[in-house]
Amino acid sequence: MARVHECAAVVSVGDELVLGQTLDTNGRWMADRLLAAGVVVREHVTVGDDAARQAETMRRLASRVDVIVCSGGLGPTADDLTRLSLASAMGDELIADDVSMAQINAWYQARGRSVPPNAAVQALRPSRASALTNIHGSAPGLYAVLAEGCEVFCLPGPPREMKPMFEQHVMARLRPSPDRTVLTRVLHCFGIGESDLAARLGALMHRERNPKVGTTASEGVVSCRIRYEGPLRGEDAAEEIDKTEALVRRAAAPYVFGAEGQTLPGVVIEMLRDKGLTVGVVESCTGGMLGALLTEVPGSSAAFLGGLLTYSNEQKVSLAGVPRELLAEGGPGAVSAETAMAMARGGLARLGCDECLAITGIAGPGGGSEAKPVGTVWIALAGKGGREDCRRFLMGGDRGAIRDWSAKAALGMLRLHLAGAGDAPMLRQVSARP
Amino acid sequence: MARVHECAAVVSVGDELVLGQTLDTNGRWMADRLLAAGVVVREHVTVGDDAARQAETMRRLASRVDVIVCSGGLGPTADDLTRLSLASAMGDELIADDVSMAQINAWYQARGRSVPPNAAVQALRPSRASALTNIHGSAPGLYAVLAEGCEVFCLPGPPREMKPMFEQHVMARLRPSPDRTVLTRVLHCFGIGESDLAARLGALMHRERNPKVGTTASEGVVSCRIRYEGPLRGEDAAEEIDKTEALVRRAAAPYVFGAEGQTLPGVVIEMLRDKGLTVGVVESCTGGMLGALLTEVPGSSAAFLGGLLTYSNEQKVSLAGVPRELLAEGGPGAVSAETAMAMARGGLARLGCDECLAITGIAGPGGGSEAKPVGTVWIALAGKGGREDCRRFLMGGDRGAIRDWSAKAALGMLRLHLAGAGDAPMLRQVSARP
Repeated sequence: MARVHECAAVVSVGDELVLGQTLDTNGRWMADRLLAAGVVVREHVTVGDDAARQAETMRRLASRVDVIVCSGGLGPTADDLTRLSLASAMGDELIADDVSMAQINAWYQARGRSVPPNAAVQALRPSRASALTNIHGSAPGLYAVLAEGCEVFCLPGPPREMKPMFEQHVMARLRPSPDRTVLTRVLHCFGIGESDLAARLGALMHRERNPKVGTTASEGVVSCRIRYEGPLRGEDAAEEIDKTEALVRRAAAPYVFGAEGQTLPGVVIEMLRDKGLTVGVVESCTGGMLGALLTEVPGSSAAFLGGLLTYSNEQKVSLAGVPRELLAEGGPGAVSAETAMAMARGGLARLGCDECLAITGIAGPGGGSEAKPVGTVWIALAGKGGREDCRRFLMGGDRGAIRDWSAKAALGMLRLHLAGAGDAPMLRQVSARP
Repeated sequence: MARVHECAAVVSVGDELVLGQTLDTNGRWMADRLLAAGVVVREHVTVGDDAARQAETMRRLASRVDVIVCSGGLGPTADDLTRLSLASAMGDELIADDVSMAQINAWYQARGRSVPPNAAVQALRPSRASALTNIHGSAPGLYAVLAEGCEVFCLPGPPREMKPMFEQHVMARLRPSPDRTVLTRVLHCFGIGESDLAARLGALMHRERNPKVGTTASEGVVSCRIRYEGPLRGEDAAEEIDKTEALVRRAAAPYVFGAEGQTLPGVVIEMLRDKGLTVGVVESCTGGMLGALLTEVPGSSAAFLGGLLTYSNEQKVSLAGVPRELLAEGGPGAVSAETAMAMARGGLARLGCDECLAITGIAGPGGGSEAKPVGTVWIALAGKGGREDCRRFLMGGDRGAIRDWSAKAALGMLRLHLAGAGDAPMLRQVSARP
C-alpha cells in the first residue's frame, strides 16, 4: 500500500462519449491535474455503458499503471454500471453502504425533493471498496485497490461534481515518487507564430533538456510549457524552472502576455485598470466578439465602457461618424485603413473612452476580391493621448477563425501598446499605417 | 477481405493529448462519422508518442473490432512514431513509398518551400500497407490489414487534414453490415430543459424502442437523437425515423428550432431573411455576445444591421436613450424591465432595424443583491410593428454560463415570436411583462 504512484490512466465511461455524441473533457482535465501532482498519465480510454468492457479495461490497466481514475457511470439509471464493473474487476460483490444512503437521503431532503426509488442503487459499493463523499451531487464516488496493487478512483461524470471530488479525494491520496519531482509552468504568447517562437527558443527546446520546453498552439495563443522532471526537491526544482522561465520570457518578448490561468482579455483589462484608462470598441466583421472578450473578465466594467457594432455601412456613418465618402463608389471602401481609423476616432469621440479599438474586415466565405481577399482585416487603435495605430492583417482559416483571430489581434495590439512595444509586428500582419 | 464492419475503435496519438495539454476532438468527430455510416465505435484510446504502446494498442484492439482509425503521429519529427508502430503491429518493416515521396516534394514545391531534410520519413510505410493521399498537408496516411483481418487507417492529427482524409479514404472503404441499417437524426431545441423534454417525450425514450430516442444537453441547446438500428433497408428505415421525428417534433413544440447542422443564430437569421426583417441589438451584461452569435452566420448582413454595447450606465443613456431617471437613485435601476424595454425601444429607433433585442443583467461574480441575485437577466424585444416582450430570467452557473445563456435566450425569444409562439414560456424565465 505504500506503493509510489508513478503513472496513471484515466477512463471515461458513457455511450454518449464513445458514440461521439458528447465531447469528453474530463480526461484532459484529469491528466493535466495528475501531471501537476507529479503522476504521468500513460493512457486515456473511453468505453460505453457496458459492464464487461469496463471491467476488462480496469483489469488490463491495473497491470500497467499505479492509479486509475474513472469518471461517469455512477448515476441511478440502468445505464450506470461503474459500480458493477468495479466489483467485477475486483472479483467482489456489491453491498449497500449505510453512510452513503444517509448522505443521498440528506442530499435530496436539503433540496426539498423526495428521494427517487432508484436512488438506492447509488449507495451500493463493492464490499472491499470505500465510498467517496460527493457534496455537489447525489452519486458517491468509489475507491478500491485491485489485486495488482493498482488503486482505482471512480468519480461521477458531470465536471462540476467530478472536479471538486478529484481535488478532495484523489489529490489527497496520490503518492508521487519522493525521488522524483515533476514541476510545470506555462507562459502564454500572442502575436507570434509557433514556428517563429520555436526558432527564437532554439536550444531551449531540445528534447533532452531539463526543464523541458515545449510549445502548443490553440486558437491563436501559443503557450510555452516548461516541465522539470528529476531528482531535485522543492525550491531547487522551482529554481530550475525559474531560470528556464526567464530565458523563455527573454526569447519570446514582447509577445508573452501571461502565465497559467491568465487570459489575453484579463491581462488587457488589468493593464488598463492599472493605468486608469478606459477602452471602447467599434466592430464590423467581428460583430461584438471583441466586446464579448473584454467583458468576459469579471470587473471589466472598471475599464470597458461600451461599443458600437457597425455591421452595415449605414451604421458606420450614423453610429461611428465615418465620412460617407470613404464608403462611396471610388472611395477606399469599408475594409480600408481610412475606414478603420475613422471608426476608431469616431468611437473615441462618441464613447468617451481613453482608447478605442476598431475592426473592419472580410470574414467570408463570400465578399472577397483579388485586391481584398477573404481574411483581409484592418485593425485600428486611437487614443486620447494621440496614440494612433492601424494595421492590415491577412487572417487564415474559415469565417469563425478569421473573426476569432481578428478580435484577439485587436486585444494583442492594444496590449503591445500598453506594454510599451507598440512598434512590434504581429503574426499575420502584412502592413501598417501609423 | 469481404468482412463486414460492425464495430470500430478510434485511437488518438500524442504526448500533448495523453498528458492533458491539448483537448482531443478528433475521437468524438470520428466516432460520430462512423456511427453515421452504420459502424458503432466501442472504444476510444489515447496514447502518447510511444511506439511500443501504440503497437500494443493496435494489436489489442484488432482482436476486438473490425476497423481501427488512428489520428496523429505522422509528422516528420522524432516524436512521430505511428508508421513504426503500425509496422510493429503488423510484424512488417518500413520501406520508402516513391509515390508518397513525389507527392511530398510536390506539396512543398507548390508552396514555394524547399523540402526539409526530415520530410523523407513521411514517405515511409510498412511494406504490406498502402499510403493514403493527403492534399491538405505533407503527411500521407496509411492503410493496412492486421493479422486478425482488422483494417487500420492512420490519419494525420490536424483536423483540417484528418477530416477530408476521413471522408475520402475511410468512408469509401467502410462496409457496414448489409443486414443491419443504422440511421440517425438529430433535432435541436432551445428554451426547454432536458428533464422537461424527457417528460414530454415519455414512452418515446424507452430503451427498447426502435428507433431509439435520447437527449443530450450542451450549452443550453437540448438535442434529441433518434437512432434506428435494425434490419430495415433504405426508405423503410428512413420512414421509421420520419415517423419518430414527427412524434418528437410534436412533443417538443414550439422549442424545436432545427435539425443536424443547423444552429440557433442560423435559424433566426434565416427566418428574418425569409420575412424581409432586420434586427439590431443593445447589450449590457453580454457585452457583444449576442451580436457575435448573429454575425457568426455567413450572410448575416442581410438581416443584422448593428448594435450598441451599453455596458456603462452612461452609455445606456447616451447611446440607447434610456431615460436617466430609470438609472438614478430610487429608480428601477439598470437591471429592470423598464431599462430593458427602454434599451430595446431606443435601439429600434436609433439602429433603424425592424426588431431590436436588448439584454441587461447581473453576470457576476459580484454585483448581486437579495432582490437581484447574480444571474438575474431581463431580455426585451421591441418591433416596428408594435411587438413588445420583456422577460426576467434567473440564469444558473458562472459568469460565462450566465452570459452565454442570456445571449442565446434573446435569440430563442425572437425565434419564438417569429415562429408565432411568442407566448411560450422559456426555461429559466421567472416572469414576463408584456
